[in-house]
Amino acid sequence: MRVVLNNNEIPKRWFNIIPYLPRPLDPPLDPNTGNPVDPSALLAIFPEPIVEQEVSQEEWIDIPEEVLNIYSLWRPTPLHRARKLEEYLDTPAKIYYKNESVSPPGSHKPNTAVAQAYYNKISGVKKLTTETGAGQWGSSLAFASQFFGLECEVFMVRISYNQKPFRRILMETWGAKVVPSPSNLTQSGKRFYDENPEHPGSLGIAISEAIERAVTTPNAKYSLGSVLNHVLLHQTVIGLEAKRQMEMVGEYPDIIVGCVGGGSNFAGLAFPFLKDKLTGERPNLEVIAVEPEACPTLTKGEYRYDYGDTAKLTPLIKMYTLGHDFVPPPIHAGGLRYHGDAPIVCLLYNEGLISAVAYKQREVFEAALMFARTEGIVPAPESAHAIKKVVDLALECKEKREEKTILFNLSGHGYFDLSAYDKFLRGELPDT
Amino acid sequence: MRVVLNNNEIPKRWFNIIPYLPRPLDPPLDPNTGNPVDPSALLAIFPEPIVEQEVSQEEWIDIPEEVLNIYSLWRPTPLHRARKLEEYLDTPAKIYYKNESVSPPGSHKPNTAVAQAYYNKISGVKKLTTETGAGQWGSSLAFASQFFGLECEVFMVRISYNQKPFRRILMETWGAKVVPSPSNLTQSGKRFYDENPEHPGSLGIAISEAIERAVTTPNAKYSLGSVLNHVLLHQTVIGLEAKRQMEMVGEYPDIIVGCVGGGSNFAGLAFPFLKDKLTGERPNLEVIAVEPEACPTLTKGEYRYDYGDTAKLTPLIKMYTLGHDFVPPPIHAGGLRYHGDAPIVCLLYNEGLISAVAYKQREVFEAALMFARTEGIVPAPESAHAIKKVVDLALECKEKREEKTILFNLSGHGYFDLSAYDKFLRGELPDT
Repeated sequence: MRVVLNNNEIPKRWFNIIPYLPRPLDPPLDPNTGNPVDPSALLAIFPEPIVEQEVSQEEWIDIPEEVLNIYSLWRPTPLHRARKLEEYLDTPAKIYYKNESVSPPGSHKPNTAVAQAYYNKISGVKKLTTETGAGQWGSSLAFASQFFGLECEVFMVRISYNQKPFRRILMETWGAKVVPSPSNLTQSGKRFYDENPEHPGSLGIAISEAIERAVTTPNAKYSLGSVLNHVLLHQTVIGLEAKRQMEMVGEYPDIIVGCVGGGSNFAGLAFPFLKDKLTGERPNLEVIAVEPEACPTLTKGEYRYDYGDTAKLTPLIKMYTLGHDFVPPPIHAGGLRYHGDAPIVCLLYNEGLISAVAYKQREVFEAALMFARTEGIVPAPESAHAIKKVVDLALECKEKREEKTILFNLSGHGYFDLSAYDKFLRGELPDT
Repeated sequence: MRVVLNNNEIPKRWFNIIPYLPRPLDPPLDPNTGNPVDPSALLAIFPEPIVEQEVSQEEWIDIPEEVLNIYSLWRPTPLHRARKLEEYLDTPAKIYYKNESVSPPGSHKPNTAVAQAYYNKISGVKKLTTETGAGQWGSSLAFASQFFGLECEVFMVRISYNQKPFRRILMETWGAKVVPSPSNLTQSGKRFYDENPEHPGSLGIAISEAIERAVTTPNAKYSLGSVLNHVLLHQTVIGLEAKRQMEMVGEYPDIIVGCVGGGSNFAGLAFPFLKDKLTGERPNLEVIAVEPEACPTLTKGEYRYDYGDTAKLTPLIKMYTLGHDFVPPPIHAGGLRYHGDAPIVCLLYNEGLISAVAYKQREVFEAALMFARTEGIVPAPESAHAIKKVVDLALECKEKREEKTILFNLSGHGYFDLSAYDKFLRGELPDT
């Protein structure tokens, strides 16, 4: 069953959860002085409207017409009830999922890419730089930039650039310039490039290259696809739509599940519901973040100040972290391989308002295959982490004969990750 | 702009154009006797409900609940107005497209795959066999079969099996068995396999293998993805939805454009509108079929009786044909490489009720890239043939200052065809 909204039901405002947090966010710190970073310092890499949103205390922020216009290419996205999965699991639980895989780039990422491209455009920016691992974020920013006539330069971790050409081609098809990282275009990259032109690279290095490139190029700014407050803000269209769609079928979730890499798809679905828990309206709402055991930021990381990138170009951020120099094993859920998490998500976790669980790669792909063969949609390995938890919850409900309503975010499809499915089907997938 | 319908607006009946044809279809002939084939002969490879639909004279045929239930996973599909493409071309023409790329397999093919799987299931069939070139059809039948617990065996042209692993993996992810063709599992395949186990294969050989396999396996039937009357029938949900969506925006197309391989996506969109031309209600409606110059069935073929496959296992069919032994060059629009076309489409063309045009590969990819960079969706190379014609029409309108309304079928997305885009972007795409 699919619950659809009309075009005119796309949310007109983003929801900012900051006013509802139980305590203020710890400010980003300047590593040299140890003092809070002045927001104006962020103007070196972000345009003014983005910096304003990053620190805004307003609950609601209007979505510009131009952004809504492009959202309408794929939004509102459908909400599905996973009846065939329920039947297969023979569970009394009701399983719903929000389907963000229907966007042209195939994930939730364009929700913020389009907004960021727009605000850069109206701020006179001519070129955006960013980094990408497997290419989910890079392809979304390429997709968004072309609508506003912005140049888009993507530093892509070289091992992905070489081994996963399809998202690279997708970015080029949408007019972006894709540079294997480390490159010799930046000082941060040249260090590694000179010692080995075939250096496999890392997300940390690519971030450093993209930031340096933005700072050293006239009329260029940097764009980030997760972690920061304004990115989570833009993703709340997911949860705002889902809330209305659940109302249409007379439901409210008992449990919300999402996978967490930097935290944006998780926050996008959960925050509009979590508001009801923070206001005391829905005290029993359970919200669960799912991460890979290969990169267990919330479940095994420390809550402290750390850098956002390897080269220490970013301010110090208070978050759960595995260390800015942590390099996770090359699991196929490339979008979940970040050493830290969004400060807002970390605060909520630290306050015990959300919980977290970690899974290994093979059990995640078992759940992914079960979903593909019952519901018919092949999930992204990232999203499959959420599915694995949902399956476990549904089986618990079966045991305890509880009819709980579960909602999760299908943040993307797996059609660019089929080689991982191939490995799994052949029993060749390492169980990291 | 996107025009969406609610779940309850999925058509409840398929439209059969046969009662409106200007003259009866020439019957399939038995190659041995030269006499018309008795429909009962088709029961060797198709279940009874499918054979009934193949020869039905009824205008409307009810869509079973079980089929509607699975359609609702992605149907109704959106109708878009391509405003950004219009602006880019600076044309007074209004361009609309029906977006069939949103189905999980990424094309219109599941519209018939789901129906065929259902009718086989209720007829006691346990296993379906079919052939596939690049994998569009095979993946759709794999997708459909799993919902009804049917085994699915796909004979995949070996050169695609080796060079395009992703749709093969997709079929396996959905539980199908994929066999590189020619194989040693059938007599038709063994002939070629024995002389060369790495024989590249052809669609003709794969069809022969799939049919032989169905006939020689207990409780197995064969399934075809295009050409036949019942396949075109199932695809009319596309046009029936589009007609309602055009009404919602107060439009009726002056011109309808679709790419033609076997003819099913073209017929699916066009026939419900074409009825109005055949009844005299819309005498000026223009309907245009677009094919590749590498396989110019309508524009350069002969209208005569010919076999549907290379091994001459099928009856003789009256159609435009390039010869059953014609092997087109390996263009990237794999879905358009069939030597014949649907008999109904051929009759309409022969009667001058539709027209046809052929394009070369490079100009088609230029149009595809223009569409991807304006509308944001990367089209399948097949669908890009329709886009190329639409672009030419829109530029004509600009010249003549005519505000025509054009509707075309975006039959699928190009996310499994990115290597072709890569070749094009690098100027390495042969201009066949």
